[in-house]
Amino acid sequence: MFRKICGVPHVLTDQESLSDHSHDYTEDLRFPPEVVLKPGSAKEISSILKYCNEKKIPVTPRGAGTGLSGGALPVFAGVVLSTVRLNRIIRIDERNLQAVAEPGVINQEFQDAVIEKGLFYPPDPASRGSCFLGGNLAECAGGPRAVKYGVTKDYVLNCEVVLPNGEIIWTGANVLKNSTGYNLTQLIIGSEGTLGVITKIVFRLIPLPTENLLMLVPFFDARKACEAVSAIFRAGITPSGLEFMERECIEYVMKYVDVKIPLKEGIKAHLLIEVDGNDRDVLMKECEKISDILQNFDCDEVLFADTAQRKAELWKARRAAGEAVKSHSIYKEEDTVVPRAELPVLLEGVKQIGKKYGFKSVCYGHAGDGNLHVNIIRENLSEEDWNEKVPRGIREIFELCVKLGGTISGEHGIGFVQKKYLDIAFTPVQIDVMKGIKKVFDPNGILNPGKIFS
Amino acid sequence: MFRKICGVPHVLTDQESLSDHSHDYTEDLRFPPEVVLKPGSAKEISSILKYCNEKKIPVTPRGAGTGLSGGALPVFAGVVLSTVRLNRIIRIDERNLQAVAEPGVINQEFQDAVIEKGLFYPPDPASRGSCFLGGNLAECAGGPRAVKYGVTKDYVLNCEVVLPNGEIIWTGANVLKNSTGYNLTQLIIGSEGTLGVITKIVFRLIPLPTENLLMLVPFFDARKACEAVSAIFRAGITPSGLEFMERECIEYVMKYVDVKIPLKEGIKAHLLIEVDGNDRDVLMKECEKISDILQNFDCDEVLFADTAQRKAELWKARRAAGEAVKSHSIYKEEDTVVPRAELPVLLEGVKQIGKKYGFKSVCYGHAGDGNLHVNIIRENLSEEDWNEKVPRGIREIFELCVKLGGTISGEHGIGFVQKKYLDIAFTPVQIDVMKGIKKVFDPNGILNPGKIFS
Repeated sequence: MFRKICGVPHVLTDQESLSDHSHDYTEDLRFPPEVVLKPGSAKEISSILKYCNEKKIPVTPRGAGTGLSGGALPVFAGVVLSTVRLNRIIRIDERNLQAVAEPGVINQEFQDAVIEKGLFYPPDPASRGSCFLGGNLAECAGGPRAVKYGVTKDYVLNCEVVLPNGEIIWTGANVLKNSTGYNLTQLIIGSEGTLGVITKIVFRLIPLPTENLLMLVPFFDARKACEAVSAIFRAGITPSGLEFMERECIEYVMKYVDVKIPLKEGIKAHLLIEVDGNDRDVLMKECEKISDILQNFDCDEVLFADTAQRKAELWKARRAAGEAVKSHSIYKEEDTVVPRAELPVLLEGVKQIGKKYGFKSVCYGHAGDGNLHVNIIRENLSEEDWNEKVPRGIREIFELCVKLGGTISGEHGIGFVQKKYLDIAFTPVQIDVMKGIKKVFDPNGILNPGKIFS
Repeated sequence: MFRKICGVPHVLTDQESLSDHSHDYTEDLRFPPEVVLKPGSAKEISSILKYCNEKKIPVTPRGAGTGLSGGALPVFAGVVLSTVRLNRIIRIDERNLQAVAEPGVINQEFQDAVIEKGLFYPPDPASRGSCFLGGNLAECAGGPRAVKYGVTKDYVLNCEVVLPNGEIIWTGANVLKNSTGYNLTQLIIGSEGTLGVITKIVFRLIPLPTENLLMLVPFFDARKACEAVSAIFRAGITPSGLEFMERECIEYVMKYVDVKIPLKEGIKAHLLIEVDGNDRDVLMKECEKISDILQNFDCDEVLFADTAQRKAELWKARRAAGEAVKSHSIYKEEDTVVPRAELPVLLEGVKQIGKKYGFKSVCYGHAGDGNLHVNIIRENLSEEDWNEKVPRGIREIFELCVKLGGTISGEHGIGFVQKKYLDIAFTPVQIDVMKGIKKVFDPNGILNPGKIFS
């Protein structure tokens, strides 16, 4: 049946394909599917879902498999539905500052294509060189630029979605404002492939800023680095990037990629701060103002990235943080998020909880958004400590996030690995509402089962 | 029972109260409720809804009653649930650039309160002097600043909602990024009081821009004025206001409020263009660039508003447009929205359709968002033409919107008056999905019945 729908070459059951599609970037988890399908159109996806819905076969939609919460893991085997062949940028509409793309387009390729027209698509997850736009929507991906420009959801106007029963709908309209019916677009974004399969996306774009300045600021106290973050916004400046990295993160990065960052004794953390716009003088003034503010937070000398190459290097270092930590040890990455000014409390809490449960963490992340990636390093922890103590510590970290007004995922999603913590973020009533919505879209529960709350 | 829940003074059944709550700002429609309740807390609202849900009594939530789609009309009588007593700004959190407010706070009062702290809440519907924040959320209200800053939905992080069964939930968390479960916050926003009653709102705020410049530009050709709009964005400028007004709109306004706008013979339309930011020189340059662009679109001399008073006058004129038209004649206001560059086609289509069906329209609106308010003037139209021909014309206008990639409401909502056109915007499958969601929240259909699709 699948061969009839997709064509023989696009139905894969060989061991290598099954193995390739058994994991994503989440820890070291593996769940091989029974078959991998690579349909070529929404219509084919519709036929697949219709069939699987009738036969109650689990279907796990998959983009590039770069997710960090296990959203693309086929935990109940069945079908992996890959969007890899839906990889066209259909239209860049320069008149309306919009673009239409398929879900299998790589984020970076899309960004480059719109930059060529002088336009800007800001969302830039660390995996932007390989992740797909469809996955970005499914997880509501962020990235460094979110602090000024918002996350994926803020750039999607409309999308075409295949429902589990095979029906194809659009979620909205191609407009900047829409008060027509329920906001299905925003319901689909961040639903982690549990409500429908996204097959076309209408993005809004913005004019490309022409200038940016980047500074790297070392701090003798990690808590103070965090405290500096909200002071910058309070002074009326909205940076286009405001990233935090602990010292150890930079040490791992320098072992992993060829970037040199001076690392004086006593330095505990860095902030990487970018401002952008169209007027260099204005940006210079903003940087001066930021420098002045930072002096109150026990920082060392501010380093300006004075060439395009140096800027690229520093961003490369930041973007490599996740991979660098991963290369050092088995780890668990927690995508904590709190209101921006609570970041110092969160960081301190994470360290105290680590001490209590005996684990080490390396933290970095989008400090401007209050989004701290807490990487818990296995190193020499025993099997027992790793499997029992660490989850208790994680639970406590998430409880702290929620107590501070935050929640348990800022941009990675709940997927498979965080669902055991969902009760920290939501009451049973909230979860029941979500389950009710799931049932409206997917009464047989065939789409991405075992994720979020199922 | 209601007296026990709310207290005797907050249960109103006198004729005057029923009459006051029988209408909103939508046309000349009246539906008196059986009782008006003014609860003082989420807990009281919970008790009311629980009771009404058991007894299957229709409940129509109501803010300030300034809506333009009839969302607050109790079309099945029953209870009007007014949020007028939930009118506290609970907290302005300067550290996190957030604020917590109740739904009965007046938009302008909220704006003023945050401005006092140097912060900015952009959404500013024309009725901002009287409309409530809760109603703004329910309809996903916009306003002139949406063109640069987005609409209500873009400033809400989280809200407390009472469900029809009396359960009280929060929809999200107080964070700028959130990939934790379905986006219930965005599902509630724009749901027009059909899914739950909003009782607390957590807003994100941004730094207050310190400077702005305003220009009024007369055009000899209304279509060319519309064409100029997308050219400005294409040149890399995002104005903080870009409003369109037809000549007749300005004529009505000048009769209605005491503002003088020079109106040369042959002028067909105006654009009101504002830029804002923190650097006056940059804004001056932007204005020059805009002026240069506009020369290609057959405009007359650009008028700069050179004092705060003159700026206030021009904005007052624009904001009075709806009321001014209303004072001239009975009218129907259609909240059309299309991709920005399709505005000229829409405007021309509206006029042609008007000719075909024999009605006059006065158009104005948020041109930068492609959001054109089409006011169809009754003047001397017969009862029959008004009730039969005009709706056929409106249908054709909406069909044109959808054909152009747009939809049938940009910021007013569907409510009661536009629901007969819903089939133009949505397929039966889409409507079924929305009805399914409604049923999850409100299985007995007690909350704001007769709206959107019910």
